[in-house]
Amino acid sequence: MSGQIQIYDTTLRDGTQGEGITFSVEDKLKITRRLDRMGFHYVEGGWPGSNPKDMEFFQRVRQEQYRNTCLCAFSSTRKAGRPAHEDRNLLAIAECGVRTAALFGKSWDFHVYRALGTTLEENLAMVRDSVAFLKGRGLEVIFDAEHFFDGYQANPQYAMAVVRAAEEAGADTIALCDTNGGTLPTELKEMVAYVRQALAVPLGIHAHNDSGLAVANSIMAVEAGCTQVQGTINGYGERCGNVDLCAVIPNLVFKKRLDCIPEQNLVYLTDLSRYVNELANMNPEVRQPFVGTSAFAHKGGIHVNALLKDSHTYEHLPPESVGNKRRVLVSELSGLSNLVYKYRELNLGLETDSAEYRRILNELKDLEHQGFQFEGAEGSFELLLRKAYNGYHKPFLLETMRILTELRDEGHVYTEAIIKLRVNDQVVHTAAEGNGPVNALDAALRKALEEFYPAIARMKLHDYKVRVLNEKSGTGAVVRVLIETGDGRKSWGTVGVSSNIIEASWQALADSFAYGILKMGENNGPNAKAP
Amino acid sequence: MSGQIQIYDTTLRDGTQGEGITFSVEDKLKITRRLDRMGFHYVEGGWPGSNPKDMEFFQRVRQEQYRNTCLCAFSSTRKAGRPAHEDRNLLAIAECGVRTAALFGKSWDFHVYRALGTTLEENLAMVRDSVAFLKGRGLEVIFDAEHFFDGYQANPQYAMAVVRAAEEAGADTIALCDTNGGTLPTELKEMVAYVRQALAVPLGIHAHNDSGLAVANSIMAVEAGCTQVQGTINGYGERCGNVDLCAVIPNLVFKKRLDCIPEQNLVYLTDLSRYVNELANMNPEVRQPFVGTSAFAHKGGIHVNALLKDSHTYEHLPPESVGNKRRVLVSELSGLSNLVYKYRELNLGLETDSAEYRRILNELKDLEHQGFQFEGAEGSFELLLRKAYNGYHKPFLLETMRILTELRDEGHVYTEAIIKLRVNDQVVHTAAEGNGPVNALDAALRKALEEFYPAIARMKLHDYKVRVLNEKSGTGAVVRVLIETGDGRKSWGTVGVSSNIIEASWQALADSFAYGILKMGENNGPNAKAP
Repeated sequence: MSGQIQIYDTTLRDGTQGEGITFSVEDKLKITRRLDRMGFHYVEGGWPGSNPKDMEFFQRVRQEQYRNTCLCAFSSTRKAGRPAHEDRNLLAIAECGVRTAALFGKSWDFHVYRALGTTLEENLAMVRDSVAFLKGRGLEVIFDAEHFFDGYQANPQYAMAVVRAAEEAGADTIALCDTNGGTLPTELKEMVAYVRQALAVPLGIHAHNDSGLAVANSIMAVEAGCTQVQGTINGYGERCGNVDLCAVIPNLVFKKRLDCIPEQNLVYLTDLSRYVNELANMNPEVRQPFVGTSAFAHKGGIHVNALLKDSHTYEHLPPESVGNKRRVLVSELSGLSNLVYKYRELNLGLETDSAEYRRILNELKDLEHQGFQFEGAEGSFELLLRKAYNGYHKPFLLETMRILTELRDEGHVYTEAIIKLRVNDQVVHTAAEGNGPVNALDAALRKALEEFYPAIARMKLHDYKVRVLNEKSGTGAVVRVLIETGDGRKSWGTVGVSSNIIEASWQALADSFAYGILKMGENNGPNAKAP
Repeated sequence: MSGQIQIYDTTLRDGTQGEGITFSVEDKLKITRRLDRMGFHYVEGGWPGSNPKDMEFFQRVRQEQYRNTCLCAFSSTRKAGRPAHEDRNLLAIAECGVRTAALFGKSWDFHVYRALGTTLEENLAMVRDSVAFLKGRGLEVIFDAEHFFDGYQANPQYAMAVVRAAEEAGADTIALCDTNGGTLPTELKEMVAYVRQALAVPLGIHAHNDSGLAVANSIMAVEAGCTQVQGTINGYGERCGNVDLCAVIPNLVFKKRLDCIPEQNLVYLTDLSRYVNELANMNPEVRQPFVGTSAFAHKGGIHVNALLKDSHTYEHLPPESVGNKRRVLVSELSGLSNLVYKYRELNLGLETDSAEYRRILNELKDLEHQGFQFEGAEGSFELLLRKAYNGYHKPFLLETMRILTELRDEGHVYTEAIIKLRVNDQVVHTAAEGNGPVNALDAALRKALEEFYPAIARMKLHDYKVRVLNEKSGTGAVVRVLIETGDGRKSWGTVGVSSNIIEASWQALADSFAYGILKMGENNGPNAKAP
């Protein structure tokens, strides 16, 4: 168990096979950059042969440069009865620009004749040929032995013949897959140990969570000699998901003390988990080990009492080691460290025991209680701090707004926004049409502001997300709108919260323009004190 | 590993220490009845000494009769320096009418001096006296050795002295607790095995999920000789929760073939999980092993293709064995097979090579290209298939709609919706206010439809999600709205897509009502041909 354990992320491929998970090409690029910064060894970007979106990703990713991560493309072995060098999928991998290929092949005899409808011999040849073809094209090849553990239990000779064929054809790593997630840890560990002594090639583990055992199976496979762990952020994936790397990594680093992801990077783990949830527009799982909002939340009186004496009494590791935080459910402690951190980052030089600081903290807590969340909305957060402390004033004020959406008899939906703004003591009253209410508001706001701040023409809205907070209230629920805006060089997030989606959208939209104006240094109005 | 494994449920006590979990006395009685019917061996009802609600529960539960379940009351050992027969908590247990007591005591030396502030010797006496007192009152006593594994790793002699003291004082079972959830499976199994050979008393395991390992730890403890598993329904509990019994039980029954809960009762497991979620008012975790709505949901085209040949290819056990069901998701990753499967499921009896089939497939692809996603929207998908093939007609038609949102001078945002519908050849023209445009539409639609379909009063919107599709277009982008609606028994998803969020919301909302009306069998209009 010495040497390095490689972390292989398949959020962008296997993860998207989870219910409700889709990423745009832009999302995929963003996630890959974050994983690279964390120190992940491999990121499986997609299946270039399977759909145009993955094809575009592999095109665009050529412009990127990573320091820690090898980008990897996924495919199956060649089709039965067809040569490898004519296989569309294999050619797509060879030509998509990556240096590493992940190739999956069948290692369960039942799957060979039932799913593939071919012979055991032909399947061995498919494995051999496909690995050899990609090795011949100069790629590193990771062979995923699909259903290895089910296969081994059904026909150990055949399962071993498949992994031996991959090894002999030159595979650099063989990942043993518990594809259906049904294998128990003790049995899995024994099988890994057997393969470990039978083969020389490095081994990986690819576990699914159908039995609630994926984390344990991954750790026990490492104990038995696997040196690569495949999984996804937040455990996204087909059915119950792949193993959650947010749980595997801290177990390997803090509990097993293995060389894996650099320990100091784990303080970004909670952030990473939430960032990916935001991009996937998924509700976070509050009890998620290590990174969930409840993971270090203490409720029982005895627990809290002991914690006050020593946090080690009821915590298996310090929450800050994974970037999470302790919460005591009876007395709200949230927000403090967040705020201190931000103040330092923005260089606002405020003493943490000053009266202003307390006031801002209270305002922040109040906003968080209403449902604001500043994690994905640093633009709004900075405006809030500047307004509260730095004498910042808004570049424009809304006086009235009216939005009308109409389905007319001919079936056409028409929306217009009418707004009255105050900008530098002038009143601007204007109106615009749009595809929908937020688009119409956006158009009217641009129309009103462009004569004062011409540079806003460069600003573009990149993303618009809506999350229902108290979803049990149905359409009467409070919603949080997150808007991502960019000016071609950088981008910023802003937030709005209201039970009225139009109002929440307005808040986020207004912050997005205000922040853009601030950063473009064009806020030349009499009230402006931008740095 | 022969003999019976007892299931000990602590949803009502340890479960309620989870964030957001509370049960009324009535809820507690209902849950206990369900657990009894399932065949659970023990239900821990609460801590009679700690609060009036638990006291009331133990009063009222005396009227109940259980066939399989022993009701159990929880408490700590006596206070330091005070005799057991004067301890308020112990007396409350002795007098509350249960025959079984669960008594927790410290087995980690650090906790004895740090949290309790007493000596190691006095703690041993507390354990001994408290167990002996309750045995003397004729109760069965389960001793929970809190933090046993942390204690054993810190000071094995002392941890063993604590469990020996409990055994000598007459404890009927000793449960070894991984209270902080930080122990790894291999180490845990070794420690259990050591205790197993050192003591004669039956052993239990009480695992928490802070490291994502609770299910594995419970199973491995059973392998090492524990005959009782303590946990909660859905894994509720302090921080990341206790072990999820909905995962442990099917693993023990189907994978380890142990005598535990009767196998034929496991068809009610999914129902039980959802029932408890409903009473706790918790959002279900879709990827929950065995019982989650995604647990047998298949998305990848290769998976679905193989499933059509044999479901065993990508399922570790048949979903119906735990009362769950297979779902095939239709998405950009899915091929033809996903659609074929859906047709069979809905019994529409269409030949896959017919012209209609091709036409529907093309329509579907076209809709997906526009941004529709039927994965979370099975309601809309079924309506689409029925409209295309089965002669289904909508229960209502929208003629005109107008929505006005206004920010008035005084800062208040006001929204109203005015709609004109055709229902069974009658025209209904009505209006309603709302918190926002979708809420106003929802209200107006209900108002218009309730006289025709009174049962829609039972329908509630559970969730409302918005996703921007071509985010580069900013607020002019196409948005997809997903709505989840329920009638108290089941729930369904519907979808709408448009560049106008109001129109997309309308589509999803209209489908949600139409599907609800279809399923409630109330579509008695002249155009209706519902099955």
